[in-house]
Amino acid sequence: MSRAPSSRLPGLWLYGTHAVTAALENPARTIHQLVMTAETAKTWKGAGFETVERKDLDRWLPAGAVHQGIAVRVEPLPALELEMLARTAPETGPALMVMLDQVTDPRNVGAILRSAAAFGALAVIVPDRHGPEETGTLAKAASGALERIPLVRVTNVARTLETLTKFGFWVVGLAGEASLTLAESGLSGKVVLTLGAEGEGLRRLTREHCDVLVRLPTSEAMESLNVSNAAAIALYEMVRTERVAK
Amino acid sequence: MSRAPSSRLPGLWLYGTHAVTAALENPARTIHQLVMTAETAKTWKGAGFETVERKDLDRWLPAGAVHQGIAVRVEPLPALELEMLARTAPETGPALMVMLDQVTDPRNVGAILRSAAAFGALAVIVPDRHGPEETGTLAKAASGALERIPLVRVTNVARTLETLTKFGFWVVGLAGEASLTLAESGLSGKVVLTLGAEGEGLRRLTREHCDVLVRLPTSEAMESLNVSNAAAIALYEMVRTERVAK
Repeated sequence: MSRAPSSRLPGLWLYGTHAVTAALENPARTIHQLVMTAETAKTWKGAGFETVERKDLDRWLPAGAVHQGIAVRVEPLPALELEMLARTAPETGPALMVMLDQVTDPRNVGAILRSAAAFGALAVIVPDRHGPEETGTLAKAASGALERIPLVRVTNVARTLETLTKFGFWVVGLAGEASLTLAESGLSGKVVLTLGAEGEGLRRLTREHCDVLVRLPTSEAMESLNVSNAAAIALYEMVRTERVAK
Repeated sequence: MSRAPSSRLPGLWLYGTHAVTAALENPARTIHQLVMTAETAKTWKGAGFETVERKDLDRWLPAGAVHQGIAVRVEPLPALELEMLARTAPETGPALMVMLDQVTDPRNVGAILRSAAAFGALAVIVPDRHGPEETGTLAKAASGALERIPLVRVTNVARTLETLTKFGFWVVGLAGEASLTLAESGLSGKVVLTLGAEGEGLRRLTREHCDVLVRLPTSEAMESLNVSNAAAIALYEMVRTERVAK
């Protein structure tokens, strides 16, 4: 029998093998409680966990969560200063960041974190309001990447883009109606790839803060890709030609 | 007041503006019933719908479905013969297909259909068993693409790859441990991009039916991308250089 976690307990639940393992390996992550089923415990190398019933996990975690018999209750990661991060980029690049303007779906943001980590980006930036929560769903979709690349929350998207411009970043907006493709633009150096919500795209003020708008070479029959797929392709295109660091 | 649809009614529910509009525009789709909220009906151009309460939609559709106040009950699309489709490809290409070996998450398969349509692929192929169901969730993630590109179900993945080989397709498997990247492989002509489930990758028998294994140039820190992101990048890479038709 295990104590049922109360909603008054601090922190949030991360679940699934990759997300949990990455959280435990992340020195910046405060761990409150590690729980797993007896079956998962059989193959687990490590100590300091409680054994719980599968049905307890089903009850504590969001409906339909694919938890693979393991979960960890953690503190959210400490906030990171974007300016500090921007300073770590080499003077003339190459360096990549991703700005998500009103992309809220935690599965999409999780997948984007994963691609951003895979292609060596410095950070994924989201607005504090109209951005995703740091949730178990996001962490699961990120498959460990939430621990490996900063998800930076900012108060104001437009002002953040201005700041990054001062640090020598090119602000590149993805917009279906742009005339140049990302590949044709020949961009290099320090780049912030900026994506808006599916359907609505970039907001006017965000768009005005872009140095250039580019599109991906999709057929006209389908006007837009899933936002995480668009981000993955844009990251790939920047890294492909070694115009930015791997 | 509207009749509550019973589980004995034929067909399946598709929901969300893009998925519903595309289904109504698809001449191959049999429509049983179109329902929407009074609010959605205000801006709807068209007739032949029933007005329902938002809470009815919430009840009829899967928990958490983002239905945007509109749903349509339809028949599954008629099955398509893969050989018929393979014959439509030009003799020497370019032509693209996607084979998903045991990718079951309907949101991932939906996003892959969308990217495949956007990059002009001929079909997405899934095994009948261990493949995704044609569901509202899949159709919603496909954002209309389910009506624009065939989702072909096959009994046997290995035999299907043999058949496509006879039709002149190169079977290209994505595998993290491959030495060549997709770009380095210089592949052209008629290509079936073959992807396995995340984590497990391609099954042994599927792998043995690949003419070549290739990887994407991701950093070693993150061994794998979300499967729909990997598929999107692979499709982009094939189309980018105009090695296959847009």
